[in-house]
Amino acid sequence: MEASFIQAKQAGKRIAGLSDDFRNDVLRAVADELVSSQEELLRANAEDLARMDPSSPLYDRLMLTDARIEAIAADMRNVASLPSPLGRVLLERTLPNGLLLRKVAVPFGVIGVIYEARPNVTLDVFSLCFKSGNACVLKGGKDADASNRAAIAVVQRVLERRGVAPAAATLLPATHEAANALLNAVGYVDVVIPRGGRRLIDFVRDNARIPCIETGAGVVNTYFDKAGDLEMGKAIVFNAKTRRVSVCNALDCLLVHSDRLGDLPALCAPLAAKNVTIYADERSFAVLKDVYPLVCPAGPDSFGTEFMDYKMAVRTVDSLQEAMDHIAEYGSGHSESIVTDDPAAAEAFQASVDAACVYVNAPTSFTDGAQFGLGAEIGISTQKLGARGPMGLEALTTYKWLINGHGQTRP
Amino acid sequence: MEASFIQAKQAGKRIAGLSDDFRNDVLRAVADELVSSQEELLRANAEDLARMDPSSPLYDRLMLTDARIEAIAADMRNVASLPSPLGRVLLERTLPNGLLLRKVAVPFGVIGVIYEARPNVTLDVFSLCFKSGNACVLKGGKDADASNRAAIAVVQRVLERRGVAPAAATLLPATHEAANALLNAVGYVDVVIPRGGRRLIDFVRDNARIPCIETGAGVVNTYFDKAGDLEMGKAIVFNAKTRRVSVCNALDCLLVHSDRLGDLPALCAPLAAKNVTIYADERSFAVLKDVYPLVCPAGPDSFGTEFMDYKMAVRTVDSLQEAMDHIAEYGSGHSESIVTDDPAAAEAFQASVDAACVYVNAPTSFTDGAQFGLGAEIGISTQKLGARGPMGLEALTTYKWLINGHGQTRP
Repeated sequence: MEASFIQAKQAGKRIAGLSDDFRNDVLRAVADELVSSQEELLRANAEDLARMDPSSPLYDRLMLTDARIEAIAADMRNVASLPSPLGRVLLERTLPNGLLLRKVAVPFGVIGVIYEARPNVTLDVFSLCFKSGNACVLKGGKDADASNRAAIAVVQRVLERRGVAPAAATLLPATHEAANALLNAVGYVDVVIPRGGRRLIDFVRDNARIPCIETGAGVVNTYFDKAGDLEMGKAIVFNAKTRRVSVCNALDCLLVHSDRLGDLPALCAPLAAKNVTIYADERSFAVLKDVYPLVCPAGPDSFGTEFMDYKMAVRTVDSLQEAMDHIAEYGSGHSESIVTDDPAAAEAFQASVDAACVYVNAPTSFTDGAQFGLGAEIGISTQKLGARGPMGLEALTTYKWLINGHGQTRP
Repeated sequence: MEASFIQAKQAGKRIAGLSDDFRNDVLRAVADELVSSQEELLRANAEDLARMDPSSPLYDRLMLTDARIEAIAADMRNVASLPSPLGRVLLERTLPNGLLLRKVAVPFGVIGVIYEARPNVTLDVFSLCFKSGNACVLKGGKDADASNRAAIAVVQRVLERRGVAPAAATLLPATHEAANALLNAVGYVDVVIPRGGRRLIDFVRDNARIPCIETGAGVVNTYFDKAGDLEMGKAIVFNAKTRRVSVCNALDCLLVHSDRLGDLPALCAPLAAKNVTIYADERSFAVLKDVYPLVCPAGPDSFGTEFMDYKMAVRTVDSLQEAMDHIAEYGSGHSESIVTDDPAAAEAFQASVDAACVYVNAPTSFTDGAQFGLGAEIGISTQKLGARGPMGLEALTTYKWLINGHGQTRP
């Protein structure tokens, strides 16, 4: 395994030295090759699918189709069209002693990613890492192993054709040992990003000896304030809960000010059309039970749960402070929103809530790299060191300090 | 222990909401109180010193004096005078759908620091964390425990007088259990910074379940190129090696181009006045042995060692590439320098060397927050995630995304 890491590190060094145009050409060539290799990719994918229960919710995530391969190739061409995140001068100053000091964006070197059963992640991660001058070391899930191998084979044959070391896209065996080796690759891999469920993220965080960026786990709240606009609230709650339930920015808990309990039925009414089950605390249950079809009393696990489903908790609070306390206790620091027409409440909420993305009068569904104008996204960080929130290409760079003198010495 | 972390987290939330003026006033009041509490601090320090062998190199590092306390207070007043790192708008844009998106600098929340026997670190860390709106949780060394307790008692009584929760400056017991609890304080402590020797840093990196910033370990090289200016090289090598040998930016290994071996005696001559021992590879030993008083053949550990002493390795290389390969193999990613009059060599060196600080024609002694104009420094990061190189107040902040809308929803 160590040999793989050494090769990846060497490949990373060489990619960093390529021109952005060259890297973009390679990405476009890989996109073309993916499209012309559809049969090969689908055959490998069929092997994986044959081992999986078609009724599993993972089955659809694992499946490749012609259209999905085209979409992956289109995403890769899009990444090639983005501005390079490298070489940005983040700070430049001449010190009093004449030294020229510059802080310049550079690649990390090698980025490790551990993920589950979605073969598109393999290609997305490769394209973002390559564009940002990094080699990637991937450890995918067992379920998608044949698909991942086929995808990397396509990538690597284009790399070789272009004279780039194939280790720039390294796929490790889909084993526990490989995951452990990756998490211990001190000196070879500069940062590891887990992409998947809570258990995977905790495993990586708890076992990594290399720096890690926790991503994705989203226990998301929206607070409908005393001064909230009802029509706005309806649209925001509906959009945040039902746009896509399986994504990390989806709403999990609606907090409602007790003065507005009378509006709660109207606030929730649109959700019924999508068969959203509501787990309501005592006061909100009393208001909803005769008017909302799918409501049941909240249980001990209703708050602090990432539902990933057509399910939502509702809790009544008596003040903005109580709403913020709930968020501090149950939120995961991902995305939080307030619906209010009171500027002071909005300001206090944005100042106090400790999360990557804090919204006023907008749904948390917008937490997304493309929506934020970052061009593409490798994940959404829920930690504070390094990137926070949606991570675009810039989040795959670090910086170095360049100091140029003419023989100055320090007294 | 958990109670301490909870209190620190709550204190952090409240400090973040204070005004910069208020925080600065508190820091100035602590500085005054330190000066007026000199007797109390010296008494506690005497307890620590009484337990230590006066011939130990740690004895001097541990010792407080009136002058040292005054210096600590002066540093604290200086931190109070710096611009606040908080509230900086790192990005602001209105998205096509009218959403206002801002990325704003905010405190981490709680910063943990694990360090060894220097009581001044206790106060430096507190002032930098407090200034940047963070609570700090400190775990000092056993040797300095009485001194640290006395210092924190001074800080906490000023905090209480000003109505700030004393948990803003939390000192844990100087035990292994406390260190372990800190490294596992997931959800309470946002980042941990080890300050000390290699063993401490490795222990923290290997055991932390919270994000960690590795600092300080510096195996530092300087390459005297084929096109190096001799007078410049002499001054740079002398300054980098002898200015202070116990700091992480001190020179450990001089790489010399084989074409310039004839100049090596002159390059090293000034070091003899400081009794610098040179561990020379075969070719450089042959050149130095009859002219440099303190030279011996390099051994297997001569390269890749952080000497922290009046000792230096010398290695001969036949090309710029060989110098860069040596640095990639033996450097610690801290500070590296090239002495050359060849702009192409300088550019290649700065582009390729993977280190926090890469110098041309200047000594690595400049790697320092104050020298870089960062105002103050909490450490020098040798990792790439989060801060890299000298860490000033900005390195103690993260950011959050603030999104303001008027009911927009995502299609």
